[in-house]
Amino acid sequence: MAKENPQGNKFNVIGKASPRVDAIDKVTGRARYGADHSRTGQLYGAVLNSPYPHAIIKSINTERARALDGIRAVLTHADIPGAKSFGGIVPHQMVLCSGKVRYVGDAVAIVAAETPELADKAIELIEVEYSPCPVVSDPEQALSPSSPLVHEDGNLCAHHKVRKGDIETGFKNSDFVIEHEYTTQKVEHAYIEPEAVLAEPGENGGVTITGSVQNLYSIRRAVASVLNLPLNRVRVIQATLGGSFGGKDEAMSAICCRAALLALTTGRPVKMVNTREQSMRESYKRHPYKMRYKVGVSNDGILQAMEIKIIADAGAYAATSQFVTWRSVVQATGPYVVPHVKTDIYAAYTNNCYTGAMRGFGSPQICFAVESLMDELAAQLGLDPFEMRLRNTLKDGSITATGQKLTHRVTLDEALRNVTSAGGFKAKWLANREQDSASPIKKGIGISCSYRGVSLGAEGADAAGVGISLQTDGSAVVTCGLVDMGQGAATTISLVVAEELGLSSDKIVFLNADTTVMPDSGPTVASRTSFMAGNAARVGSTILKDRIAPVAADMLKCKASALVFCHDFISAGSSRITLAQLAAECFRRGISLSAHGWYKSPKTTWREEDGTGDAYFTFVYGANLAEVEVDIHTGRVIVTKFISCHDVGKVLNINGAKGQVYGGVAMGMGYALLEAYAEEDGQPKLGNFDEYLLPTICDMPQTEVIFLEGDDPLGPYGAKALGEPANEIAAPAIANAVANATGRRVRELPLTLERVLLGKNLIPGRERGSAMAKGAES
Amino acid sequence: MAKENPQGNKFNVIGKASPRVDAIDKVTGRARYGADHSRTGQLYGAVLNSPYPHAIIKSINTERARALDGIRAVLTHADIPGAKSFGGIVPHQMVLCSGKVRYVGDAVAIVAAETPELADKAIELIEVEYSPCPVVSDPEQALSPSSPLVHEDGNLCAHHKVRKGDIETGFKNSDFVIEHEYTTQKVEHAYIEPEAVLAEPGENGGVTITGSVQNLYSIRRAVASVLNLPLNRVRVIQATLGGSFGGKDEAMSAICCRAALLALTTGRPVKMVNTREQSMRESYKRHPYKMRYKVGVSNDGILQAMEIKIIADAGAYAATSQFVTWRSVVQATGPYVVPHVKTDIYAAYTNNCYTGAMRGFGSPQICFAVESLMDELAAQLGLDPFEMRLRNTLKDGSITATGQKLTHRVTLDEALRNVTSAGGFKAKWLANREQDSASPIKKGIGISCSYRGVSLGAEGADAAGVGISLQTDGSAVVTCGLVDMGQGAATTISLVVAEELGLSSDKIVFLNADTTVMPDSGPTVASRTSFMAGNAARVGSTILKDRIAPVAADMLKCKASALVFCHDFISAGSSRITLAQLAAECFRRGISLSAHGWYKSPKTTWREEDGTGDAYFTFVYGANLAEVEVDIHTGRVIVTKFISCHDVGKVLNINGAKGQVYGGVAMGMGYALLEAYAEEDGQPKLGNFDEYLLPTICDMPQTEVIFLEGDDPLGPYGAKALGEPANEIAAPAIANAVANATGRRVRELPLTLERVLLGKNLIPGRERGSAMAKGAES
Repeated sequence: MAKENPQGNKFNVIGKASPRVDAIDKVTGRARYGADHSRTGQLYGAVLNSPYPHAIIKSINTERARALDGIRAVLTHADIPGAKSFGGIVPHQMVLCSGKVRYVGDAVAIVAAETPELADKAIELIEVEYSPCPVVSDPEQALSPSSPLVHEDGNLCAHHKVRKGDIETGFKNSDFVIEHEYTTQKVEHAYIEPEAVLAEPGENGGVTITGSVQNLYSIRRAVASVLNLPLNRVRVIQATLGGSFGGKDEAMSAICCRAALLALTTGRPVKMVNTREQSMRESYKRHPYKMRYKVGVSNDGILQAMEIKIIADAGAYAATSQFVTWRSVVQATGPYVVPHVKTDIYAAYTNNCYTGAMRGFGSPQICFAVESLMDELAAQLGLDPFEMRLRNTLKDGSITATGQKLTHRVTLDEALRNVTSAGGFKAKWLANREQDSASPIKKGIGISCSYRGVSLGAEGADAAGVGISLQTDGSAVVTCGLVDMGQGAATTISLVVAEELGLSSDKIVFLNADTTVMPDSGPTVASRTSFMAGNAARVGSTILKDRIAPVAADMLKCKASALVFCHDFISAGSSRITLAQLAAECFRRGISLSAHGWYKSPKTTWREEDGTGDAYFTFVYGANLAEVEVDIHTGRVIVTKFISCHDVGKVLNINGAKGQVYGGVAMGMGYALLEAYAEEDGQPKLGNFDEYLLPTICDMPQTEVIFLEGDDPLGPYGAKALGEPANEIAAPAIANAVANATGRRVRELPLTLERVLLGKNLIPGRERGSAMAKGAES
Repeated sequence: MAKENPQGNKFNVIGKASPRVDAIDKVTGRARYGADHSRTGQLYGAVLNSPYPHAIIKSINTERARALDGIRAVLTHADIPGAKSFGGIVPHQMVLCSGKVRYVGDAVAIVAAETPELADKAIELIEVEYSPCPVVSDPEQALSPSSPLVHEDGNLCAHHKVRKGDIETGFKNSDFVIEHEYTTQKVEHAYIEPEAVLAEPGENGGVTITGSVQNLYSIRRAVASVLNLPLNRVRVIQATLGGSFGGKDEAMSAICCRAALLALTTGRPVKMVNTREQSMRESYKRHPYKMRYKVGVSNDGILQAMEIKIIADAGAYAATSQFVTWRSVVQATGPYVVPHVKTDIYAAYTNNCYTGAMRGFGSPQICFAVESLMDELAAQLGLDPFEMRLRNTLKDGSITATGQKLTHRVTLDEALRNVTSAGGFKAKWLANREQDSASPIKKGIGISCSYRGVSLGAEGADAAGVGISLQTDGSAVVTCGLVDMGQGAATTISLVVAEELGLSSDKIVFLNADTTVMPDSGPTVASRTSFMAGNAARVGSTILKDRIAPVAADMLKCKASALVFCHDFISAGSSRITLAQLAAECFRRGISLSAHGWYKSPKTTWREEDGTGDAYFTFVYGANLAEVEVDIHTGRVIVTKFISCHDVGKVLNINGAKGQVYGGVAMGMGYALLEAYAEEDGQPKLGNFDEYLLPTICDMPQTEVIFLEGDDPLGPYGAKALGEPANEIAAPAIANAVANATGRRVRELPLTLERVLLGKNLIPGRERGSAMAKGAES
């Protein structure tokens, strides 16, 4: 895509501060979320979950439930006409379990009833006889040969590796080597809106599903395979989404398959809405990682070798574990040049709640490890964390761990300089190390940085479509195969169309995604929407504009090249017509006012054998700075200031971009300090938000956002990605700030009161008065 | 468009007997008609119609209605934010009347209530004070200067003329001249499903309408202008239609505007479903025509001149009167060469129920007049009706009344020969004239023929789109801006896509039309769907095929030109892959599986001043033959046999094509013998189907269908049109057969018992034993 907009460098709307196109709908309550969709005559679905994390199902007796008045269907695995789980060759969550249950979110039976209360009552009347099995709850133990099996083919869910150089040579070249283990916790997406769906029997023997779906096309594939229907008879329509963060994929496939099954069995619309408790019990989470980093460095602070072994808890089912861990393995060395790399990542099945996609997708974990590690190395070397990083960051022409040469402007150093300079990092960092011990409140400052591959990369097929339909009154409908789940995709895509056609963005209605309207554009993940759909919107707009411009030139008696499309007018010199006039004239002349743009990502490569390849077609770079106050009497951490710098290529909407960063920081704060979905022997230790601590707006620090615009040659107007980068390095910046404040390193997230208070890992050189020690510390 | 299909002359599915794609949905009851759409929390709308055909509204008091419990809105004209009627410069039906009412279908107030019963009760409580005005009920009198005015600007609704040659010269060249007046009645569309709509407040401040709509885009324009909304915030979705026949355009605009107004006022979904009585009272009808034909003929039976004056009753509002009468004026001389023509057609406003589009669109009336006239001329000349026609029919290279030269195969004579030969016309026609008078049952045989311009012609912008979305399992979704209203468009369009892509037609889901999904493709009228959408479907399929064929060639290691797409496989020699495999591989490679086809009609011209021009880009030709038995004691007519021959260019689906003819014949029988929507002083004399006589399946004669395939160079595979041609000449064939049986000519439709029994117009030469008389008879 060209970097310039059609009017040269002067943009109509791109890069300015635009309100969200759905702002009024949302604040007035007109927006209709999943649970807002109802039909007359609908039934209410309910699910019977397993009380055991691992058990053989000996029998299911639904007789008493069926006998209840007002019950229209009680279904078990035996009633599923097609696949019992949602496709793919790896084990996915079961629609309804048959032989055994593998986690407490597993479903055994479903009910459709005239009222929600009756449905719940029927669920209570279903009798299931279980024979409990030994519970596999630790992923490391799960991989030992003696472990009980969660799945017949073994507990190894995924394994990826990266090999670069020769790891032994790397350690030989090192002046010292340190080795640490970092662990991150399982966290909940915590979308405000729990899973909700309405399934209606279709007119063509199929089914129409409206609900809080993030990835329409994978859900459609799931429903089609479970119901044994062709894809074109399953229509999935996205309701306005109350958050997703990667979470409304397989979790929605499950509820959609169940509701669809009930709807086709009963011939009536079926509504299913999860309570928060159900949602937390069943929906997948972010993978907890146990990460062992062995790193060799030369005396001048140059990284020589990294040997990394990561164990991820996949939980009971695979979901996207294979892809999440792949991004981790690609990016595991962090944004640094490391000549010798050996990385292995394993995902293991356990009887815990399964894990899958969540904002960051395998990066928040490794960012925490690598960015903590860099500070630990700096401490070992007596360097400040900024200097330590600068000596190792990826630069123009650097080769990544997977052997990919970075050919475009690598802005890591610039990002780091921006946050450290704006935050007065070095002086504060040094001063914090010498704080007066009289006050229990200690100040800390920390930084972090990352690089991140944009979009899916070598993970899979990567293309997307945008449809544009101009109306004869100069208004337009824009739609896309990717969804707005709150991140602002509707606004971004609308702005691109507005820019290209010279439309006011309030003249655009953005239609929620619908599988029957738009071709499969892949999942709305991987921070790919602005890039992929933005490019597709430019392609579509260009097609449409090329079609209508000659008519405008004819009306204005000029050359098409002289036309300027701006603010709902088309001008040539001092003459102008409205876009509405042009559209009406095109219609009169029988010219189509509808266009589809399709964009296919540039090529990427991957060799699974040794983990080499050009894994992503472009990368983003970013740095964070956090300031904290730690009460060393209680362990309480307050984030007082945050500076976030991201090279986004080009800001498309400054409001939206800032919003992404604010949200990312808040989510990163939760990850750093509060959130943990704890389980014991496969049983969740909490069930609702009263026990699952989340940051609120009141916890938000003053947050400064700095954008770097690097004019990526591939992105729309140079834009790249922001959604996940904004989130992935917040936690390590906070962790590093806490370490700066306390002199103690906590290698486990979240930094709870207890860990901060009792953390025993003293930072070298922070034993007051002691000389800095060199050598390994574990 | 090319004439050949991609595999040469061997078609996959085109021209064969395919079941309707919606057959199973309809027979199983899965298909959801307008009234089948409901939402939880919906309100029910009701309308207060005028008791007077013409009256000043002095006051409207809604207080008592508003005071009723459960009433959510009582609205009058004052509550309409935008236009009070639906757009255009001519007077259209009012959403809600203000100053005065002009027919008894006019609405004065609307109500939204929690139940339909409450809504009706509230309607009864609305007090309107009227001051009745003189009623204009005769269109001819309406045009006299002394007539009371229905609309301020006068009672002339439309006037078109055609001038060819010099009419006086024409009559001078004639050996004799006859002059007759023919009249046709007002008839009801009699769709099984009355008007029904569900209007929901949209998420974007607009409104979504689902209902029994024929012309989505004109209804969207109406609603947008009445509610003062941009077009993109009004979404109109077609429910499965239970018949329309041209009737669900303005009649649906009215109910849609009212429901939308109530929905946006109350913020709740509003459902409005007309009873049959409401539907008959308010919905427009086919125009009754009074047609005066003065015709000059030479002794050898060659037409020399036609002077035609037609008065159409437009009723209270214009609707499509201007366009209906335009088709009449173009085709008024029938399918005959007439060197000198002077035609004038006038539509007049009256206080009768207004009239508009109905199957035939101004042709059934003039076909009845011209085809009766040809038989009358034949009788005058002592020729048989077949011979009389042959001497005058349009042939290759003939010039029509509007000066258009017919350049493609004109098959009128072939059509006439087909029906007369298959029906043994001449022998029976002669024998019937000499029937034994002892039996009261007299046999009759009659023929008729017509030519008809395909699609809109010079009537307006003419283009249409079709969207095709292939899925990765080889199934497909096809959608179109034109609707299936029962005529089989879904099947026809699906078959074209199936043909082009080598798909089985049961692999296709045809999506009902939706203004937000498809660009404005104009109205579903003028028998234009097979032609316009068929061509668009070919364009779209070709785009898609050109995109995926190289991948297939790559997979099959052959040239793309060697590929054969057939029966869900793509073959090259003995190797083959499934379409599903190809689609999945394309998806993997990031190739879009979606395509939009757009087709714009060839150019037409029109000079309104003298009624000359190439009015249509192509024409269809057809001939009908009817046999009847007439009981001369009662006047009862039974149609015993029917032969219908139509040059359709190319039959796309033999089942669908035959269905169109059977339906057209049945509807023509109703028009000929039974149907009449009678009014007296603006008051309807009947209110439901118990009084409005319609033919049923039991009345259907043995019907033989003959198709001519002329390979039109423009149509898809050569196809042209059939929907209206199949209907327009049924009535005159029956009328001519009755005249053949009784020896009396009835010049007024329908041929009721009384008219047949008491008809006084003796046919020359049928006074037993008398010589044939030459000269004028009136």
